[in-house]
Amino acid sequence: MNILLVYAHPEPKSLNGALKDFAVQRLKDAGHTVQVSDLYAMNWKAALDPSDSTDRHADARFNPSLESKHAFERGTQSPDIAREQDKLRWADAVILQFPLWWFSMPAILKGWVERVYAYGFAYGVGEHSDRHWGDRYGEGSMAGKRAMLVVTTGGWESHYSPRGINGPINDILFPIQHGMLYYPGFEVLPPFVVHRTGRMDEARFSSTCEALGQRLDDLWNTAPIPFRRQNTGDYTIPELTLRDEIAPGRYGYAAHVE
Amino acid sequence: MNILLVYAHPEPKSLNGALKDFAVQRLKDAGHTVQVSDLYAMNWKAALDPSDSTDRHADARFNPSLESKHAFERGTQSPDIAREQDKLRWADAVILQFPLWWFSMPAILKGWVERVYAYGFAYGVGEHSDRHWGDRYGEGSMAGKRAMLVVTTGGWESHYSPRGINGPINDILFPIQHGMLYYPGFEVLPPFVVHRTGRMDEARFSSTCEALGQRLDDLWNTAPIPFRRQNTGDYTIPELTLRDEIAPGRYGYAAHVE
Repeated sequence: MNILLVYAHPEPKSLNGALKDFAVQRLKDAGHTVQVSDLYAMNWKAALDPSDSTDRHADARFNPSLESKHAFERGTQSPDIAREQDKLRWADAVILQFPLWWFSMPAILKGWVERVYAYGFAYGVGEHSDRHWGDRYGEGSMAGKRAMLVVTTGGWESHYSPRGINGPINDILFPIQHGMLYYPGFEVLPPFVVHRTGRMDEARFSSTCEALGQRLDDLWNTAPIPFRRQNTGDYTIPELTLRDEIAPGRYGYAAHVE
Repeated sequence: MNILLVYAHPEPKSLNGALKDFAVQRLKDAGHTVQVSDLYAMNWKAALDPSDSTDRHADARFNPSLESKHAFERGTQSPDIAREQDKLRWADAVILQFPLWWFSMPAILKGWVERVYAYGFAYGVGEHSDRHWGDRYGEGSMAGKRAMLVVTTGGWESHYSPRGINGPINDILFPIQHGMLYYPGFEVLPPFVVHRTGRMDEARFSSTCEALGQRLDDLWNTAPIPFRRQNTGDYTIPELTLRDEIAPGRYGYAAHVE
């Protein structure tokens, strides 16, 4: 299988760098083909801006999504964007690996999502009618592909537990897993999370690699998170709220998981 | 009062640009002093990286938080970072204004948080003991200052409602409001959110400005979101989980609001 690892840490000799190297080797040893988008090493441009199209008029009003749509349709996207889209088309599975900084992904990776996820590619796909609100949340360009997060945190596991002060890790990751991965069609596997990275010794690093290796071995037979599909009856359209009889009395993120 | 508006949209002639201009004028008319950090206009560097310190050895292993700590202590931070910290020290209130892109803030603003929030400035502040886990979540360098989000979304209000498909807007904003603003000590006011920005006409723009203006007029007498303080007994230390008798049976983000 073809696997794309999008990786966002500035230091190759970090824990993240070591886990990335381990993952790439493990996947290759299993016979997969791996590409790595090492965003810091690539000096990835984080900010979405007018230079993301190669043919626009400098003085035209810049509408980010319309501009993205036109550049994607006309083939006038910045070459770095088109290259990443090609990698996504090529991949059977995508892994996003990053340290959790301020309860989200690093800016450089957020900018990868913003720029690579073009209108017509990752959103604005499919018809919008009173029965179908675009190919998204269970449909879309990434349908049939799998995705998984590999995330490190400095904080303790308990700080991210259901009653932990930072909020539950699954809620913190929901905008990424549901909003950035499930939205364009990926099947999203449960995340691999390493907590308290300041307390990593040889033994713990070894057991962490073993656990990560197992997750990579199981990439094709791990059950995805059962997010609800948008266009198959659970939601009213165009309000996109859960129908009364679906998960009655439940609110918030958890209601969108079957 | 002194007000810092941190603004992240690439197009001055956008809805966001118009709302920003309106807000600045309204605040000045009320007698406040306003500084704007217009991140796109400033060509703000989004990615946190080794060049954020001016005196490091090029071949040294880069540890983001330790490097930030040393540079902050020694006064060897990149000048753009130090300037933004000075603006934060100066401000009595901070407004972050941005379009919601992929269920979070734009990368350029995330990178502002990552780089400006130095170790010793926004985190790693105060003693860590079995009774006090750092000055954070209700204490910290920003204590006594107020903060508020001004956010626009393309999606409908119902899509962000308690049973809406994107998740409730307050949950989507929790990592920002609680994790990036309350954490270093800000009192966080309820957000000002404008939905369905593609359907903005003169009349709606006018009523939106009126509502935003009212929120700005009320900046000093709006009740902040009553997030729970970390170090005053609601949480066990160092686990940082809610004590059993606090919000019994409640889990997730909502449990951290009194």
